[in-house]
Amino acid sequence: MNEFAIEHIPESKYCFAEDKNTVTLRLRVSKYDMPEKVEVVYGGKYDYATVQLRAIMKRYCEDKLFAYYTATLHLADVRLVYIFAITENGKEYYFSEDGLTEHYDYTLNYYNCFQLAYVNDIDVMKPIEWLKTATFYQIFVERFNIGLKDKDKSYINLKWGELPKPKSFAGGDIKGITEKLNYINDLGINALYLTPVFSSISNHKYDISDYYNVDKNFGSKDDLKELIDKAHAMGMKIVLDAVFNHCSDQISQFQDVLKNGRKSKFYDWFIITNDNPLQYECFASCKYMPKFNTSKKEVCEYLIDIATYWIKEFDIDGWRLDVSDEISHEFWRQFRRAVKEAKPDCVLIGENWHDANVYLQGDQYDSIMNYAFTKACLDFYAFKRFTPKRFVEKLNELLMRNCNAANSMLLNLLDSHDTHRFFTQVNCDKDKLLNALSMLYFFDGVPCIYYGTEIALQGYHDPDSRRTFEWDKVDSSSTLTQLIKYLCSLKANGELADNNIVITEHNGIIEVVREKYKLILNGNEFKIKYTPLNKSFAYKYANGELDGWGFVIEKI
Amino acid sequence: MNEFAIEHIPESKYCFAEDKNTVTLRLRVSKYDMPEKVEVVYGGKYDYATVQLRAIMKRYCEDKLFAYYTATLHLADVRLVYIFAITENGKEYYFSEDGLTEHYDYTLNYYNCFQLAYVNDIDVMKPIEWLKTATFYQIFVERFNIGLKDKDKSYINLKWGELPKPKSFAGGDIKGITEKLNYINDLGINALYLTPVFSSISNHKYDISDYYNVDKNFGSKDDLKELIDKAHAMGMKIVLDAVFNHCSDQISQFQDVLKNGRKSKFYDWFIITNDNPLQYECFASCKYMPKFNTSKKEVCEYLIDIATYWIKEFDIDGWRLDVSDEISHEFWRQFRRAVKEAKPDCVLIGENWHDANVYLQGDQYDSIMNYAFTKACLDFYAFKRFTPKRFVEKLNELLMRNCNAANSMLLNLLDSHDTHRFFTQVNCDKDKLLNALSMLYFFDGVPCIYYGTEIALQGYHDPDSRRTFEWDKVDSSSTLTQLIKYLCSLKANGELADNNIVITEHNGIIEVVREKYKLILNGNEFKIKYTPLNKSFAYKYANGELDGWGFVIEKI
Repeated sequence: MNEFAIEHIPESKYCFAEDKNTVTLRLRVSKYDMPEKVEVVYGGKYDYATVQLRAIMKRYCEDKLFAYYTATLHLADVRLVYIFAITENGKEYYFSEDGLTEHYDYTLNYYNCFQLAYVNDIDVMKPIEWLKTATFYQIFVERFNIGLKDKDKSYINLKWGELPKPKSFAGGDIKGITEKLNYINDLGINALYLTPVFSSISNHKYDISDYYNVDKNFGSKDDLKELIDKAHAMGMKIVLDAVFNHCSDQISQFQDVLKNGRKSKFYDWFIITNDNPLQYECFASCKYMPKFNTSKKEVCEYLIDIATYWIKEFDIDGWRLDVSDEISHEFWRQFRRAVKEAKPDCVLIGENWHDANVYLQGDQYDSIMNYAFTKACLDFYAFKRFTPKRFVEKLNELLMRNCNAANSMLLNLLDSHDTHRFFTQVNCDKDKLLNALSMLYFFDGVPCIYYGTEIALQGYHDPDSRRTFEWDKVDSSSTLTQLIKYLCSLKANGELADNNIVITEHNGIIEVVREKYKLILNGNEFKIKYTPLNKSFAYKYANGELDGWGFVIEKI
Repeated sequence: MNEFAIEHIPESKYCFAEDKNTVTLRLRVSKYDMPEKVEVVYGGKYDYATVQLRAIMKRYCEDKLFAYYTATLHLADVRLVYIFAITENGKEYYFSEDGLTEHYDYTLNYYNCFQLAYVNDIDVMKPIEWLKTATFYQIFVERFNIGLKDKDKSYINLKWGELPKPKSFAGGDIKGITEKLNYINDLGINALYLTPVFSSISNHKYDISDYYNVDKNFGSKDDLKELIDKAHAMGMKIVLDAVFNHCSDQISQFQDVLKNGRKSKFYDWFIITNDNPLQYECFASCKYMPKFNTSKKEVCEYLIDIATYWIKEFDIDGWRLDVSDEISHEFWRQFRRAVKEAKPDCVLIGENWHDANVYLQGDQYDSIMNYAFTKACLDFYAFKRFTPKRFVEKLNELLMRNCNAANSMLLNLLDSHDTHRFFTQVNCDKDKLLNALSMLYFFDGVPCIYYGTEIALQGYHDPDSRRTFEWDKVDSSSTLTQLIKYLCSLKANGELADNNIVITEHNGIIEVVREKYKLILNGNEFKIKYTPLNKSFAYKYANGELDGWGFVIEKI
């Protein structure tokens, strides 16, 4: 055994409760080690010295360097202690807090076994039921559709269809979304994530000046209520964007500071580093977005009240948390407690671009925007940094980053308002887009489609990734739309709701096997022979041959 | 580079803020890799693509398999992003979320660099100032000293000096401790940790029937107040034992359940698994210790009120948390918030025998009883499982388990009421006890001496480890007492308060170097030549030779 490679950490992604009586364990080893047998030797904390049970661990997946063994234990006594027994070349080794050893003294286990000393249900991270069948559609509100025909349009400075600049206003609004709910619903989408809708002078509205009101150019609170009610009536959920790291310098509290300086009762709502001239912390280096001081109790209460207000009064189904990684863990814990009390199945999706395991322990968010998945897809489909094998290894690595419950809730995306359009990144190669979309749905988690993906909307980085929707390009008979509809229906019908994903690669062919369906992708540029057993959807497949970037979805 | 060995995890023991503007980073590599240079390449989150700074990381320590490089960064912009640059054989490699690579594209860093996105002061784990100079003395109250001469002694069934049985009562009480405060203080001890003092029918009192009262055999609330006030007047702190996992079946709430069953308003204060016959969860398999249901809000409030009551009314300085690993993280977070609000420098010391990193992030406890240190000392001094080299490797491994602030607060101990006496474990070898005591003090953290160690009290496991103190054996001129006094004074004078501990081994000689003092231990059975430069304390040292298990403490 490669001792350097072995890893296990209790109460982590390597050891987590699925529910009060179920614990999943993972053990990492070098992928080049092929032990005959890997077992977890477990028992109750108070009688382990005399009674040890054994469960076989199965080799679940491999990434670039490591293989991961897993076992799920069903426990009567939830005071779990355990070590691992690894048999190699007929000899048994033990892995405990003492590392890899040839002997293990069970009578001294209280010093060096691993443990999950008790499963307290309140600490267990649990999946949100409705996410299991959800497909999200992210809408950059200003660019989706104009619904308010009679509104004052003097602020609009971009003709619909022209390329946006940083300060363009094209006129999209909430009513515009409501008008298109049938269109969205027809695609099979059942959840919306809207970029911010509250009062703000910018087009993106990430600089909010009034969190209790809808932006006037976007419409009214009634418009938002109508959208939410109609969406709910159609079985759709709505997630709004919580911009709590910073606000607009136009917000009354900051204006009060500008006016009254240290005398303002809001002075320490912000992080002011110099009085004269006024200097303060802000988002990035955008002085028009002062950062909130969430170390101050009143600020936390203010922001949490906003979060619960829109849940209680408008019945929204979740918050996407802007720049969530720059706000304190302590804030998110308080925030979660209040939100879940208001609506237990309200989802919290952090904007953390990096490994966010520390936030995904059940006490802070439920999910993040899974940009690591985005990056893996770019490295494979766009940048050619990954062979099919490396792509699969990276996807498996990502699955091992978090516990199963978190994995099932991660918001997987190919692009967003903060990236290039994926279709543009792959040089408008539709084969790759279709291929990647099928992976997006088959990967564990919740797929999120950026508005316009279904019409192959293009765009480089912001502001170009925020183009107006091209309604004349809608074509329900296009392969792209057909695929999205098909994948949405699989998802909505719970066909991809299991946690038993297995991703493998062989000769450039990638297989993603779920319990009920499997996806076979040809990641090569050339044709390969393939005979589906129970074909449900196919692209670039004919006569026993799967062409380059083609794929087949099969019912198992 | 051995890719299997490299590890770094942001917002963990590998990356933690020391204060708002100071971040310490650790990088783990194989100890057999000797790169020419290891650097952290860091910058601000929003301009890292264009501006990267570099800091050399120093090879800080080695354990059995790994070497750890560290660097401490002082940041103006606390939105830290970074990767590592490792130069080996003249070639530079990069380590990021993408693993070890030959190239790194800084323009795409937002996808795969490491980050500590913002240092929120409220999340930063900070050392408690008074712990830096503290030596604890753990007293098993029932066996230390009888102070109340006139009390009803009919409950006493063990003659002072005889060997205790599980249900022995020898008569020790709080007044007995107060009487001996001068004795304890003379040793140089400046903190007491008392096993439980609240109403309970057992001798250990880990089954509490009234948390708001002092056990009648131990004395009165006034006695406790007197002890605390006198201790405080002498500059000593007092930590009590919080038994919140379970209580006594004699407690009124449980008695109410016994009487009224499901109709009791305390029915769900406990975890009742069957009504008739009554079955319920308890500590270990002790039916007289029913487990509290800390998923219930009222139970949490009750226990937290107890914790703050003794702080507010009696001014205690901390809680040792019994069976803390079986209570929910959520409970400890609430508990911490309430305790720290009542007394910010009140210390919380969990009874977690295993790696408790997940509890030591700044949101739950400050410290644990460091039984992993105990085990390392037993493996070296008692069980001969460790060579001096392996002992040092294990100590370094333990240092790398937690962040620096946690390390500085861990309660290091050689033994307790729950283990054999260390002196008994080393077959009453005084050389080893003296040697281990010097290590106890020089290791990072807070030393805790179990009562009687200074008179070489013996004892196997409970109940034998809870013998009565032998007051006739007190000998202030003994080497043992002299050493403890010397080490306590070093500690109390802040000579061992730094975080810059370096532990190395060479030919069986162990060196523990702190900023102001260093300890040289001879872990061999034979003499070695050694010439101290600035000898401050020595044992088994003469004429340029350090005998087996001898040691020298030098001023640097």
